[in-house]
Amino acid sequence: MHTTGSITQLVGGRLTGPDDIALTGVQTLSAADENQLAFISDPRYAPQWANARCRAVLVNRGIALPPRNGAAAIEVENADLAMALVLEMFAPQPHLPGAGVHPSAVIDGSAVLGKDVRIGPLCVIGPRVWVGDGCILHASVNLMADCAIGSDCELFPGVVIGQRCTLGDRCILHPNVNIGADGFGYRPDPRKKTPVKIPQIGVVRIGSDVELGAGACIDRGKFAATVVGDHCKIDNLVQIGHNCVLGPCVLIAGMTGIAGSVTIEAGAVLGGAVHVGDHLTIGAGAQVAGGTQLMHSVPAGETWAGSPGQPIRDAARQELALRKLPEVLKQLKRGG
Amino acid sequence: MHTTGSITQLVGGRLTGPDDIALTGVQTLSAADENQLAFISDPRYAPQWANARCRAVLVNRGIALPPRNGAAAIEVENADLAMALVLEMFAPQPHLPGAGVHPSAVIDGSAVLGKDVRIGPLCVIGPRVWVGDGCILHASVNLMADCAIGSDCELFPGVVIGQRCTLGDRCILHPNVNIGADGFGYRPDPRKKTPVKIPQIGVVRIGSDVELGAGACIDRGKFAATVVGDHCKIDNLVQIGHNCVLGPCVLIAGMTGIAGSVTIEAGAVLGGAVHVGDHLTIGAGAQVAGGTQLMHSVPAGETWAGSPGQPIRDAARQELALRKLPEVLKQLKRGG
Amino acid sequence: MHTTGSITQLVGGRLTGPDDIALTGVQTLSAADENQLAFISDPRYAPQWANARCRAVLVNRGIALPPRNGAAAIEVENADLAMALVLEMFAPQPHLPGAGVHPSAVIDGSAVLGKDVRIGPLCVIGPRVWVGDGCILHASVNLMADCAIGSDCELFPGVVIGQRCTLGDRCILHPNVNIGADGFGYRPDPRKKTPVKIPQIGVVRIGSDVELGAGACIDRGKFAATVVGDHCKIDNLVQIGHNCVLGPCVLIAGMTGIAGSVTIEAGAVLGGAVHVGDHLTIGAGAQVAGGTQLMHSVPAGETWAGSPGQPIRDAARQELALRKLPEVLKQLKRGG
Repeated sequence: MHTTGSITQLVGGRLTGPDDIALTGVQTLSAADENQLAFISDPRYAPQWANARCRAVLVNRGIALPPRNGAAAIEVENADLAMALVLEMFAPQPHLPGAGVHPSAVIDGSAVLGKDVRIGPLCVIGPRVWVGDGCILHASVNLMADCAIGSDCELFPGVVIGQRCTLGDRCILHPNVNIGADGFGYRPDPRKKTPVKIPQIGVVRIGSDVELGAGACIDRGKFAATVVGDHCKIDNLVQIGHNCVLGPCVLIAGMTGIAGSVTIEAGAVLGGAVHVGDHLTIGAGAQVAGGTQLMHSVPAGETWAGSPGQPIRDAARQELALRKLPEVLKQLKRGG
Repeated sequence: MHTTGSITQLVGGRLTGPDDIALTGVQTLSAADENQLAFISDPRYAPQWANARCRAVLVNRGIALPPRNGAAAIEVENADLAMALVLEMFAPQPHLPGAGVHPSAVIDGSAVLGKDVRIGPLCVIGPRVWVGDGCILHASVNLMADCAIGSDCELFPGVVIGQRCTLGDRCILHPNVNIGADGFGYRPDPRKKTPVKIPQIGVVRIGSDVELGAGACIDRGKFAATVVGDHCKIDNLVQIGHNCVLGPCVLIAGMTGIAGSVTIEAGAVLGGAVHVGDHLTIGAGAQVAGGTQLMHSVPAGETWAGSPGQPIRDAARQELALRKLPEVLKQLKRGG
Repeated sequence: MHTTGSITQLVGGRLTGPDDIALTGVQTLSAADENQLAFISDPRYAPQWANARCRAVLVNRGIALPPRNGAAAIEVENADLAMALVLEMFAPQPHLPGAGVHPSAVIDGSAVLGKDVRIGPLCVIGPRVWVGDGCILHASVNLMADCAIGSDCELFPGVVIGQRCTLGDRCILHPNVNIGADGFGYRPDPRKKTPVKIPQIGVVRIGSDVELGAGACIDRGKFAATVVGDHCKIDNLVQIGHNCVLGPCVLIAGMTGIAGSVTIEAGAVLGGAVHVGDHLTIGAGAQVAGGTQLMHSVPAGETWAGSPGQPIRDAARQELALRKLPEVLKQLKRGG
């Protein structure tokens, strides 16, 4: 059983109040019941603590809480990070498919399955596929011919990995992720002018510790590889075009679309619904605000925003100026 | 058999012309044949009636049609609503999976199936799942461990419902809908600076009479629930982030993305390709135009538009001013 | 085995240098090894040829390359087109499901399968479905009741084709494509004000030689058909609403969303992340730049851009003026 005392130890915090309040889970400050732990990382929410039903809170050092008898406050450097540790402790044990291969799965005889794999119902594993030790395929996962996934990956239902594509270790692919569909490339037929498909004969190469959100799509390269580096985290419904190369630790939020042949360097962060034109480079550590339409490359370390995308300071100044423009035009007309 | 007379009764309209024209279906005015019913809800299309091939039309009260011998006009208060009733009548009987459980489906022994369910081929139903009476799972649907769906739901192929998530009654989930993937949350590893996953231990709780379009994604909460209220209608490829709470009767058109912890109150309507930043609130009955990039909360009842989103009147004035700006700058330069 | 000589013949080029260099594949200029063919279609990359590891290059006529002993340059009219031919030659043989029907597939007795079909594991084919000669269904494809697909189509895992929808010949549908989900249409319940579904009783009719990217969605018509013409090429995660009609040879890049009842005429090209409002028309041969928010119809042959979309010249002038605006306002304030 977890208590205010054990949680304080876990997060390395400083406890004010009783150390024996039993804790069964985590909730927001407004919804938490008497045995749930809330957290406050923003001083604006501190006053709500006075009347909260819950009796224990994780709080950022420096935020002054109203005093409460019989309640416990655990002070930490960073309540968000501490909460991540606490969540790990309270995480319910997920249900996994049984050890081995479910009898309804269809596994080609030439596929190689590592130790301790769990292959759930109705998975399809093609010829010469390699599945590393400890992998979990929940159900209805398709690994097409000649693809390979490393150790300890977890693949959810509906994931499709195309022929010859590879995955590193400890990757998590959420439902209906599409790896290795053909890139979007056509040439006009010289006589009939109709578009003719350019073969997309490359692959997708995904590193280790990568997480891909539901419905995300990563196209295979035209002839080389589309590459996603180690520790990349990519959200739902993101599209990554052929020949893109993502360095390590790139974060991309939901519904962002990356056209073909884009380079994204280490540690860059893209917000949601960003759209990146083809052949651009986003430099190491750059940040791109949600909703940005990028038509130019972003230098390393810069923060860009807007439509079209530009350094965030320029975008903000133009936005402000545009807000004033209707009034300015009216004054100019009056000869003001 | 349906006739101009029976349709007039069905929609409670006023008939001019013969009541015995046989009707086999519905079409647009320009394409309808002699036994199809067309409709006119906009006076601009009224003149086309004079030369239309079809002999029967539903028309909004107050729209003057050119007179035609032997043809029938059914006048109603609202032709769009009347057409909805007519469509229900002409809807072809859809094919359903056979009663009971298809022998190829994989159902855990601890799952509870209600009365009169139809579980199609190759569905996977995990341990302790609850399926309400009358549910239809067309084929290849995945209900993961401990999830529960109410009565009379219809789930199309490729739908995945994650562990512990719940659905109310009479929901319709189109192909490849993803419920309960993990939210997008990471913290930097204190030593290696790589992003580390924050456990997403919450659930998704969907109300009754909800419809979700193909490929839509609703992430599970970080520790509480992501909530979708009764009667919400959500279109294709919409993404709803972790911890969002949608009140009843929210309508969201295709390709709209909602970041984390957003509140959308009852009856709000979001157009297509709207993007909503995290922690915002969209008030009851508010309307957000298609393509809006929301970075601020929208008060109840207001209509917002633009990029960045703002009250539609401001957005329209700025748009107009921007159109004039190139000319104004030219005049200023001339010293005008 | 392929050599610089045989490739020169294949592409109809003019060879400078040895004709007997063995070629095993294609790569970018910077990555190609000694037996890979690179290509240069932009003069900016020509200087890199001097120090490239590879010994053979396809180059556009008119680009001056630094001379290199023992290396071969194949001059062509258009290196991109020539490369497409070369890629076809180097394309690895894809793995196909075995001839006939995999024993794990679930095929209704009333379905009609053409000659030489390959139906992979765990496909579901409903009653009265028609599958043309030579079709390939890789695995886990769902063809619902009464749908029909022409000859020589290739469908990847997770594709769902809804009831009564049709596909022409030689179509390629990438993983998790959704054809024939219901359109997004509701009417308010007259008493309770809740949204009530309008039946979507139409179909989707897709022509021949169409390619649809992973996760793309095409909704069925409200009562008529949603139509996609011959030779249309549609990228990943594109959404096409009910009642849209696309003429032949329309190209649509990734993440573009088309609302309902839009007409797109022959040969129009839409970039990525374009959003098109309902009932608009995009004329024949028109081009819409990536990221455009269309709220008005685009005349045939024009190029539009911006948010809101407008002729690209106007959009560019406004963008330029907006960039100058902050400075202009500052000067006006100073009384400049």
